[in-house]
Parts: sequence; structure tokens; C-alpha cells
Amino acid sequence: MFVLKIGGDKNINIAYIAEDLKSILESGQKCIVVHGAHQERDELCDKLGINIKTLQSPSCIESRYTDIEMLEATMMAYTGLVNTNIVSTFREKGINAIGLSGVDGGLIIAKHKDKVLSIENGKTKVIRDNLTGKITAINIALLELLLENGYVPVVSIPAISESGQVLNVDNDAVVTMIAKGLGINKIISLFSESGFLKDIDDKESVIKEISVADLEKYMDMAKGRMKQKVISAVDAIHSNIEEVYWGDGRIEKPISSALSGGGTIIKKYNV
Amino acid sequence: MFVLKIGGDKNINIAYIAEDLKSILESGQKCIVVHGAHQERDELCDKLGINIKTLQSPSCIESRYTDIEMLEATMMAYTGLVNTNIVSTFREKGINAIGLSGVDGGLIIAKHKDKVLSIENGKTKVIRDNLTGKITAINIALLELLLENGYVPVVSIPAISESGQVLNVDNDAVVTMIAKGLGINKIISLFSESGFLKDIDDKESVIKEISVADLEKYMDMAKGRMKQKVISAVDAIHSNIEEVYWGDGRIEKPISSALSGGGTIIKKYNV
Repeated sequence: MFVLKIGGDKNINIAYIAEDLKSILESGQKCIVVHGAHQERDELCDKLGINIKTLQSPSCIESRYTDIEMLEATMMAYTGLVNTNIVSTFREKGINAIGLSGVDGGLIIAKHKDKVLSIENGKTKVIRDNLTGKITAINIALLELLLENGYVPVVSIPAISESGQVLNVDNDAVVTMIAKGLGINKIISLFSESGFLKDIDDKESVIKEISVADLEKYMDMAKGRMKQKVISAVDAIHSNIEEVYWGDGRIEKPISSALSGGGTIIKKYNV
Repeated sequence: MFVLKIGGDKNINIAYIAEDLKSILESGQKCIVVHGAHQERDELCDKLGINIKTLQSPSCIESRYTDIEMLEATMMAYTGLVNTNIVSTFREKGINAIGLSGVDGGLIIAKHKDKVLSIENGKTKVIRDNLTGKITAINIALLELLLENGYVPVVSIPAISESGQVLNVDNDAVVTMIAKGLGINKIISLFSESGFLKDIDDKESVIKEISVADLEKYMDMAKGRMKQKVISAVDAIHSNIEEVYWGDGRIEKPISSALSGGGTIIKKYNV
């Protein structure tokens, strides 16, 4: 069993992923899918005139400021548009997919972050009205029920609090928490790069394998969204995930390619 | 067991419905919810500059023309925004709700309508690119699996074809097909009127009970969306549904009120 993370770039090819996944599932494997949709969400915000505000944490991690308008755009783009499109493409290719947001059946439970620190013009500001949360639990019984009955869960944010408040949460944390909860030790993450690039301007500079010892030093090398991916990989490895595969979601057979070393492999134990 | 249909008007009070439903479920009843979202969808279309085009069938039934833009707006408003908001409000009130579109797990299977007839300026036109379908099957096993495990399914359009194409379908047909498939003989439909009005301008003119024999003659009396409701009630009764309750979704205890005759009751058999 593995968790498949599909990035939120529009040039990721969902049909290629579906075809590859179909053959892998036919060999008796099971899988849970978690997907992003940041590009569709940002485009929707643009069309709706919603101001996209980025927060920068003291540790230089960027995140989206989430007010009610941004949260609704997240529901519409992630749960409504992209989740439905992925599930329908999967079903078209013969995968018995079922879409779920973190709200459905209390799948992803989060605690509201009362305050978030953000660096603005060199000053630390306290943001209190940010509708984001930290994941505290996953409804593993629901995922197991669906898996046992032959469904492939396709999961998207948002999450929900114990008291019923819808909250934005970090997608990579969803992946790690689901893997932990189900005792899965393999994560495959597909995005729109060939892997982790030593030089972001050189598409050929893919680092084939990263040892856990070295992973944290790559933090400085990582730029933009890649930085968040490195942090997530560190988190995943610290959460007893043994193998994280980063691969190119734009090519044919993207999962098989990532598994056979076409991208970057991060392993907890050296072979 | 009953099917609860929640209309798509924004002034329907979801919190009132949730509170009432919670007590009804505590008495040991089970329920499947189907909801609309036409007002949110039309508002989203307005904001996104999507042209809303109405088709009029030769039998004077109005429907929305559904091209890919309208279908995406349907996914965003129904599956993304309104479904998530209903599920989160239900969970807030202690109902173990799970949201599903017709695409999820192949819940609502439809056949694409190759052509639709539309009357425009007195002339009959053939519309071929309309992304709508006729429901052919419901995944009853999925609904039963969720019900047996303590979940309350909250269902929205769109549907999906056998070959994986997302399709718009009539929401009332979803209600009837689910009721038929589960052998349910009671439908409660909440909207933003006190019931079926004899005179649409007189809010006090609610018809308390309609016999099946009389139902079809009310077709001429019904205006706008109410016409579709009457057709749906006729369809439901012809599909072996024994009781259809129309009630006001804006008031406290709306389900209990509808069941105790606060709105309009349509019964297959006279008592």
C-alpha cells in the first residue's frame, strides 16, 4: 500500500497517472490518493477578484492567508473542480475512485491555529483571523472501510475541526498523517519537475537519491514550493515513513518511473 | 428511512434543518440527504461572467444549458461550496455526515442525452452539445455501506456516465432514483415556500393535501421551479413512493413541521 500525492500544477497529466495506477492496482496493490489544486484555486481567486495574500513564517515558509473568501475558493477549486475531475478521469480509466474532502465523515480533523506569526517588511505580525489548522486526527476507519470494499479514496483539503469549523490545512501534512495512520511506509509524490533539482535552472540536475542525514542540508538549496516539499519529506521520514519518491507527473507511467528511480528517492535506511 | 431533499435557495436555514434532523436520527431513523445549489451556482456564473442560458422543452419545462463552463460551475457550487457547507453544519450539530457527488464511487450513473429539444422564439431547435444525462443507475451498495456504518450521506449532482463523462442531471430525479433503489417510500422536500401555493402571490394559500388523482391537474397551476416540483412528485408517486412532503426550509424544525402537515402532503393512497 502507498500514498500517492498529486501536485496542484495544471500541467500534471492526470490521464497518464490514471493509466499507470490502474496497472499497479491490478497487481494487487492498494493506494490512497491526496491531491493539490493550488493553481486552479489561484486562477479562480483571480477571476473572482479575491486578493491572494501570502504569509511568511519566521522560518521562511510561505503559506496562503485564508479568510472566508479564500476558504470558499479552496472548497470550490479543490473539492469541487479538481477532485471531481481526478475522480472522473480515474473512473474513465477503470479505477473505482471515490472523492472525499477532509470534511466528509470527519476524515481530516484539525485544530484551529488561534494565531500565526508572519514576517511583513521585516516585522513580525500576529495574524489571528487565519482559517487554518493543524491536523490532529484522521478517520482511518473510514479509509479502511472504503479500501476493504474496493474503492480508491481520492482526498482533498479542507479539513474540519471537532466543533465543525472548516479549516485549511497543509496538504503534505495530510499525506504524512494518512500514511502514519494506515501504517503505510511509502509515499510517491508527483509534481511538475523531474525530481529534486540541484540547480533549479538546470532540468537535468536531478539528485537521484538523498540520505536522511543529508536531507536537512538541502533545505537551504530548496526554493519556493520545493522548500515545503523538503520539510514534508523530513517530517515524513521522522514519522516512520521509510521511502519517499519524488517524480515527474507530466510524463507517461509517472508512478512506475518514480518507483524505479526516474526522479529523487529519499530513504530512511541506506540499502 | 426517508430521503430529505434540501432546495438550492440561499435563504433555506441549514442549521435549523440540522438541529431537527439530529433529533429525528436519534429516534433511530435513517436518512439520505440530496441538496440543490442553483442560487449559489447562478451567482458564481455571474461573478465568472458565464452566460446562463435556459432551455425550454416542448412540454414547457425549463432547464439550464450545460456547456463545460456551466458544468465546472456546477461542480464548484454544488460539490465544492454548498455540499461542504451542509456537511460541516451537520457535523457541527452532531450528525455524522459524509458528502458525495454522483461522480464519487459511481454513485449516480447517467447516460448522455445526445440531443435535447428546445423552443426558441417559437421554433424547435435541436441542442446537441448539452452536457446533461438521464439517470440509469444508483450505486445503492455504496449508500448501504455508509448507512450501515453510521454515516449520513449528503448527495449532490453532477453524475457520471459509464465511460467516465461528468454530466448534469435533474436533482429531483436523483431523489426519486435513490428512494426507489433503497426501497424508501417517503420523501421530504424543503424549499423556500410554505408549501404548494394555490396562488403564488398569496403565501397563505398552501394546499394541505393533494391526492394523486388531482396532482397532474396542478401542473397547469404551477409556475417556474414549482412546475418541476410537481412533475417530480408525479414521477415519485409513479415510482412507488407513497408519501411526498413539501415543507418550508426557512423555519425552525422544518422536517417535523412538514411531517405533521405544516406544508403540502402528497399521498399515493388515501387514508
